[in-house]
Amino acid sequence: MKMGSLDYFFYPESIAVVGASSDPSKAGYQVLKNLTSMGYAGKVFPVNPRADELQGLKCYKDISEIPDKLDLLVITVPAKHVLPIVEQAVQRKDIRAIVCVSAGFSETKTDEGKAMEEKLVAFAQQADIRVFGPNCTGVINTAIHLDTTIEPTVEQVKGGISIFSQSGAMAGSILLFMEDQPAALGFNKWAHVGNMCDVNLLDILDYYGTDPTTKVVCIYMEGISDGRGLINTAKKVSKDKVILALKVGRNEMGAKAAFSHTGSLAGKDEVYDAAFRKSGIIRVNDLIDMVDTAKAFSMLPLPTNNKVCILTEAGGPGSMAMDEIGKQNGELRLAHISDEGKKKLKALLPDMALVCEPDGYIDMTAAAMEQQHADALEVVLNEEDVDAVILITVPPTFLPPRNISSELLARKYKTNKPILTCFLAGKWVLEARRMLELASWPTFDTAEQSVRALLRMWQRAKFLNDSEE
Amino acid sequence: MKMGSLDYFFYPESIAVVGASSDPSKAGYQVLKNLTSMGYAGKVFPVNPRADELQGLKCYKDISEIPDKLDLLVITVPAKHVLPIVEQAVQRKDIRAIVCVSAGFSETKTDEGKAMEEKLVAFAQQADIRVFGPNCTGVINTAIHLDTTIEPTVEQVKGGISIFSQSGAMAGSILLFMEDQPAALGFNKWAHVGNMCDVNLLDILDYYGTDPTTKVVCIYMEGISDGRGLINTAKKVSKDKVILALKVGRNEMGAKAAFSHTGSLAGKDEVYDAAFRKSGIIRVNDLIDMVDTAKAFSMLPLPTNNKVCILTEAGGPGSMAMDEIGKQNGELRLAHISDEGKKKLKALLPDMALVCEPDGYIDMTAAAMEQQHADALEVVLNEEDVDAVILITVPPTFLPPRNISSELLARKYKTNKPILTCFLAGKWVLEARRMLELASWPTFDTAEQSVRALLRMWQRAKFLNDSEE
Repeated sequence: MKMGSLDYFFYPESIAVVGASSDPSKAGYQVLKNLTSMGYAGKVFPVNPRADELQGLKCYKDISEIPDKLDLLVITVPAKHVLPIVEQAVQRKDIRAIVCVSAGFSETKTDEGKAMEEKLVAFAQQADIRVFGPNCTGVINTAIHLDTTIEPTVEQVKGGISIFSQSGAMAGSILLFMEDQPAALGFNKWAHVGNMCDVNLLDILDYYGTDPTTKVVCIYMEGISDGRGLINTAKKVSKDKVILALKVGRNEMGAKAAFSHTGSLAGKDEVYDAAFRKSGIIRVNDLIDMVDTAKAFSMLPLPTNNKVCILTEAGGPGSMAMDEIGKQNGELRLAHISDEGKKKLKALLPDMALVCEPDGYIDMTAAAMEQQHADALEVVLNEEDVDAVILITVPPTFLPPRNISSELLARKYKTNKPILTCFLAGKWVLEARRMLELASWPTFDTAEQSVRALLRMWQRAKFLNDSEE
Repeated sequence: MKMGSLDYFFYPESIAVVGASSDPSKAGYQVLKNLTSMGYAGKVFPVNPRADELQGLKCYKDISEIPDKLDLLVITVPAKHVLPIVEQAVQRKDIRAIVCVSAGFSETKTDEGKAMEEKLVAFAQQADIRVFGPNCTGVINTAIHLDTTIEPTVEQVKGGISIFSQSGAMAGSILLFMEDQPAALGFNKWAHVGNMCDVNLLDILDYYGTDPTTKVVCIYMEGISDGRGLINTAKKVSKDKVILALKVGRNEMGAKAAFSHTGSLAGKDEVYDAAFRKSGIIRVNDLIDMVDTAKAFSMLPLPTNNKVCILTEAGGPGSMAMDEIGKQNGELRLAHISDEGKKKLKALLPDMALVCEPDGYIDMTAAAMEQQHADALEVVLNEEDVDAVILITVPPTFLPPRNISSELLARKYKTNKPILTCFLAGKWVLEARRMLELASWPTFDTAEQSVRALLRMWQRAKFLNDSEE
């Protein structure tokens, strides 16, 4: 690894935890536990002058005593003890990365806190050490089961989504919302950099941009001073990766709260909107929107054009999907189904089915069984004008939801068109949704959410087309 | 009960099921099962010429053989057999209500289907029999454990919300979404009237309006021809009850789908919007919005004014709540916290807490433990300018979510101000949310949803004030 590389944070071969503890209420206990219990294969060295052994590992009085080469240092001791430890780290000469979990620096808005943070950065920079924090929870990298955080409950389900958050609570919430999908939505890397005394949003975005295993980047942000830097970095990254941003401060009220929280000047929201559009960042509206959108992008190919077929088993949610399409000012349009396609659909669907009323909208009715769901889907996927399909169903009593999922999966459709599914019925459809998601068929809670996810995919496809021109 | 009363549907003392069956794939099996297994205490008579006994009950060849008085008839046989049964019902002279589950009438859009439906109504009306359907699933009344539907999975949790849906799938979905809350959200009555050959939306709305146990009415609708009737009925009902409407056909696309589904002419959306506003109907945007809003109204008192205090343990979701308030064009405003209140908050909260930056917004920070949540809530509830509180928390590792709920509930706050809570962290907070909801503290998935629910409550309070003037 080369000097200054964030690889030392995400792929360290050895880690020391200063402030490691046997007291479960201490951060140093949980950090050590996460490093030893999640499957991380590198070397871990607990440091605590008052212990000989911690969680089965030899404990060192001091980092200078550790005989092996160290890549990463995690510091969890109270703020006043941090600077001497950083000085020791500098003296060792091998350490290239520090995660400073300790709080009590610039975020206190005191002169003392700010001064300590300035010294911390100065010490580290002179020795080419990069710093996460202070006041942060660090990194997770599911690829090597690394977890420097103080979270006890993060399931490491692997996936292509990497996360950055300016807020610790939001960083946690994003993961927990992803975990709470019908099938836990996996992730790749996760970073919370707290006060950003050194490593900041742009560094992480740039790093994720070069990470071959990251497909989608999710960002929670409150404000950024280097707008030009954001545009430049995002422009580069968004060529290959999807970038989703949840940014607060949409108006004066939100901006005041964001400033109070992280001291971020939220700035004019329209300026951010324009910067995001220009650099290919997709702005999402809330946590649920972020998870839905990340799910769609991580599981599906992009549509090649904007013509969608709505295939629904129920007229109510079908109409709601149509309302949502209508709301999007023509960005999505209904696909044309050929006469031959219509004939096939009429032949295979129940008599009551409403085929193409209007064109591109098919209400299979509640009499449609699993084979009819699957057959109709096959017909519309083969239609030339169809670029994407939204499949909606509220499985009635006599049609166990699992049966629909099994039948759809058994067909092994050969298609490069995105299929978004919405099974609307709470717990009754949870297992069926889980089956689909485990096979990379994203499912959504409501018909409207599936339409919005598709819209985002189409906007991304357009952005990539426009960039090529 | 008086002639024509819908009480015969919702409170029948005896019911015959024509088409009752031992075959679990038949509607007549499930209807009988729901009537015998959910705790309904009235008399139930299965009718099927090819059985002597069904589910432990004596089975009759024909309704004319049933010796007892009958209130309600549920018909599940194929369409072509329906009219003779209605004729028999007329001849009996005791039956006052028919739920016609059978499909194959006007919804087929065939002349034959339409003609059969017309005859059905004509027969029934001459004998003062009211009809639900055809092509419907009937009624549920949790007060007497009545369930004439074909749904096998409806949990009868009692509550103050009554439901009407023009779509069977949506009728089911609403219930299943309500059931899927942290604590299943109870309901009172539920009606799906299918083709509405006789009993229609207005009849049900009027009936729910006079029902003392109904507090909130939830309606899913696609269109109504009698706009004046809707306004008149809703105006009357909305004085005492909250009416929530989810109406599709917001634009041309949705309107086309709704027309294709139920033949409803959705009409100009602005006309509906105006009619809803005028008559006190609250329009919700989707299923999740409907359930959130119904939950808030069914659990909380209305705010007396529009000043809200945001009490958050995390700056990220706090900022998102503030963004949502800012979006509402000043309809909700931040409350002023008195100097004394600020002093108390600063004394009891962690040093890092941001008290009233800006005024009415309190970031307790992640160091706030359960006592501090509860103490701070007490202080702000006692502030004169505070009309409502939104309490947001993302419980950190060291603060089990249950502890916060226990502490809040233990305080037994004496207040008539609504408190809306948002614990943001998926499964990690589910049990804590459940504890709160069982004690009538509504919880929401996101901060934005809690703000929108409060906004609806304030709009309702204003509507009631304006009506009084």
